[in-house]
Amino acid sequence: MNFCSHCGSADLRHEVPPGDTYPRYVCGGCGTIHYENPKVVTGCLPVWEDRVLLCRRAIEPAYGRWNIPSGYLENGETVVDGALREVREEAAAEVKVSYLISLYNIERINQVYLQFVGELIDGSYGVGPESLETRLFTEAQIPWEEIAFTSSLFTLRAYFRNRRTNDHRLHRSSYPDVGEGLR
Amino acid sequence: MNFCSHCGSADLRHEVPPGDTYPRYVCGGCGTIHYENPKVVTGCLPVWEDRVLLCRRAIEPAYGRWNIPSGYLENGETVVDGALREVREEAAAEVKVSYLISLYNIERINQVYLQFVGELIDGSYGVGPESLETRLFTEAQIPWEEIAFTSSLFTLRAYFRNRRTNDHRLHRSSYPDVGEGLR
Ligand SMILES: [Zn+2]
Ligand SMILES: [Zn+2]
Repeated sequence: MNFCSHCGSADLRHEVPPGDTYPRYVCGGCGTIHYENPKVVTGCLPVWEDRVLLCRRAIEPAYGRWNIPSGYLENGETVVDGALREVREEAAAEVKVSYLISLYNIERINQVYLQFVGELIDGSYGVGPESLETRLFTEAQIPWEEIAFTSSLFTLRAYFRNRRTNDHRLHRSSYPDVGEGLR
Repeated sequence: MNFCSHCGSADLRHEVPPGDTYPRYVCGGCGTIHYENPKVVTGCLPVWEDRVLLCRRAIEPAYGRWNIPSGYLENGETVVDGALREVREEAAAEVKVSYLISLYNIERINQVYLQFVGELIDGSYGVGPESLETRLFTEAQIPWEEIAFTSSLFTLRAYFRNRRTNDHRLHRSSYPDVGEGLR
């Protein structure tokens, strides 16, 4: 942030405003306090019988690696709406959301992941514009070495653990945990 | 947003960038795309034996009304860290987080509430600078007509429902649901 987005002044100081406990960009021109907060990444792991649907990324970062359909929550949508949108955009599929399986923090880069499990409506899916390909995998077929992000590794391990124990438990963790303790 | 925070230009257009599906503020001067996303409100309902701790707000909005300790998640902290901070700031208390009880959307104003249940460490608490008073309430004592926000009404109803059924279920909903279906 180099200029105040309200008045255009370059007189910005990074300081703790009166009564606050965190430093913010404060404009010396108009007094506006500019807050910056973490972003929500919402996603959903589509499930069909004993398999899960992953998407091979056609975009950076992690081009060519497999991922759970996920992306930034947009203004005006609920977390579930966002997850359904990501499944449509990346896998051209419709799911019925079953439950929230993971709350995963990457606090260093100000991200909060909320990922659901959902049933593919009729087993059908396609390839969205942000994907190179999409494919259903059994647990034994998961390409563990080619998964895009720690959040997806964690959620996949949480999912197969929940399947074994037949529950819908929410798993919470933070980077760099990849869920190996859940195996 | 009146000026580009990167280059200071007033040449901002609200338009859908190439390859995107949502309108953003795009700078005609430097090309920066300014994304705006929902914020996370994190909180924790402190519990002690058969009672829950609420805080009477000393700040607007909802001055004088009772609330679950909650506030915006800050950059650099996990959702649990933020909830613990809010309990300290508003109730001068320490809790051990038990489970995530609610995911509540107010998509009209771009808020996602994540509220936990936590045990007060030794039953002690105080009054933080943003509170007029703090008090433990049994279910029968809850001042339902004086609760600050729909998110807190929803989480309180979810909590007493979970107590009755003796589970740790996560409840998901959106504004304006106040959890009456959970009773
Ligand atoms: Zn300004
Ligand atoms: Zn610019």
